Amino acid sequence: MTLPETRLIEKIKKMAAGTDSRKRLITGIGDDTAVLKRPGGNLLFAADMLMDGTHFNLQGTEPELIGRKALAVNLSDIAAMAGIPLAVTVSLAIPDNIPDDIPLRIMSGLSDLAKEYEVTVCGGDTNIWKNPLVIDVAVIGEATGRGPVLRGGAQPGDHIFVTGPLGLSILGRHLRFCPRLSEAQYLHKNYLLTSMIDISDGLAKDLRHVLEMSGGGATLNRESIPLNRNPDGSECSIDQALADGEDFELCFTVARDAAEILKRDTGYPGGPLHEIGVITPERGLRFADGQEITISGYEHGVR
Amino acid sequence: MTLPETRLIEKIKKMAAGTDSRKRLITGIGDDTAVLKRPGGNLLFAADMLMDGTHFNLQGTEPELIGRKALAVNLSDIAAMAGIPLAVTVSLAIPDNIPDDIPLRIMSGLSDLAKEYEVTVCGGDTNIWKNPLVIDVAVIGEATGRGPVLRGGAQPGDHIFVTGPLGLSILGRHLRFCPRLSEAQYLHKNYLLTSMIDISDGLAKDLRHVLEMSGGGATLNRESIPLNRNPDGSECSIDQALADGEDFELCFTVARDAAEILKRDTGYPGGPLHEIGVITPERGLRFADGQEITISGYEHGVR
Repeated sequence: MTLPETRLIEKIKKMAAGTDSRKRLITGIGDDTAVLKRPGGNLLFAADMLMDGTHFNLQGTEPELIGRKALAVNLSDIAAMAGIPLAVTVSLAIPDNIPDDIPLRIMSGLSDLAKEYEVTVCGGDTNIWKNPLVIDVAVIGEATGRGPVLRGGAQPGDHIFVTGPLGLSILGRHLRFCPRLSEAQYLHKNYLLTSMIDISDGLAKDLRHVLEMSGGGATLNRESIPLNRNPDGSECSIDQALADGEDFELCFTVARDAAEILKRDTGYPGGPLHEIGVITPERGLRFADGQEITISGYEHGVR
Repeated sequence: MTLPETRLIEKIKKMAAGTDSRKRLITGIGDDTAVLKRPGGNLLFAADMLMDGTHFNLQGTEPELIGRKALAVNLSDIAAMAGIPLAVTVSLAIPDNIPDDIPLRIMSGLSDLAKEYEVTVCGGDTNIWKNPLVIDVAVIGEATGRGPVLRGGAQPGDHIFVTGPLGLSILGRHLRFCPRLSEAQYLHKNYLLTSMIDISDGLAKDLRHVLEMSGGGATLNRESIPLNRNPDGSECSIDQALADGEDFELCFTVARDAAEILKRDTGYPGGPLHEIGVITPERGLRFADGQEITISGYEHGVR
């Protein structure tokens, strides 16, 4: 493979778009989930594949946390649409040289999170092979309220928020994060969210996805970006917060008036919200002092 | 792993069943697809994972056929419920050492079949890694007519049919078979099918799945089992037809009176149907001469 992953995905996206002859898609590849027209309520549909050595290291990780993450990343996609997850399939390729309890502990961690979020594990495929562990989870969900929140609706002047501190997920949070489902549902119910995305590739890269779909650019306040802490108590760098990825916090936009109300909203069920910047008519991503943000964001590597 | 795959699946099934606190499932793990209650029509949901060296050999196989198969096996699951497939997600783990065109040709083969069957490819996940190719496809579909045809409804006296010849799929048909969607929909519309399954693990094993779910046993007429042919024109053995697997024909049951009408039905859109036996009140699987069928069926191996 010399083709970069992003170009490969672009080409696949094009091919996939050609298959919707029945016009079932409201939103296809390119948002956090697909949105399918269905009588009785539109359906959200997505999948995330995790591989040993890329998204987790089986060696040295509690298997329950691997199963937990495989489900959590999918629930985060549903959260990013302000949806309710309904059911998942779980497909496993299990290495033949691991102890018997490992796949069961993986499924136990996954099932426990499923119970916590009232998601039904309803099927899948279990295989044994001579290569590293792969878990693919596909999720369906339903939209809430005014329908799914897409990436493409941010308007110049909208304020940009994130649901929690960013960076350093690699230290362990990527295995233990809580998908922001109730937070997203509350926000969607009480505010007109103009766009939303979950931060999986790093704030800089994911915000660029929003800007590509919405048009325009963004200005961020350096000092407003919430930073996670190192084990020694020090904060991570701005670059880490922008680029580390796998934060699985939500980044969303609301109009200025709504932002003012939201900042005083004591009913919000999550931790503190952070207002980090505004959408601008001019393209590009920069800090308030004019400095361009060039950081490219997270490419999945071994962790 | 010393735990056999079937016991592992049993344990996973149990854990999964514990997650349906919201009682969304009409049918969970253990049928060809899960059936989920939804306003506006129940939903079918399933996934199948294919791995290089197990379900195909990337080396020496047209990549288009690999993509085709990854979708076709899922469509066959929907066919086994007499459903209509709606949309799929496609997750790929792509080895980093293959030419750029391989994943695109895989997706092209998959997309072409999707167009043929009017299935929307709406999402998924594309990853590159240093290990063999994995494709996981998850499918959603809708039930037709009286609802999905399950495995558990066969009654003593019902006649057993298969939709085409069996055995020798390994010679290439497993890569090129046509999922029996229109056949299943026609049968379901015009007959009261008491059970249906797609033959992926071999007739003997899959029919045993039906018998486990329905109760009772079955008697097969040795001479009625349709046999595929070797390249030299000779027929395969009965054992091959019973055990080879990956035929992806449908095996279904109907009451005796319906069977008589079906055998004279000139409107059926598929190739010749084969009546191969009857459901009996006594447990077990045997030939009409009383000989017990002990063959265990297909375990996925390298092909």
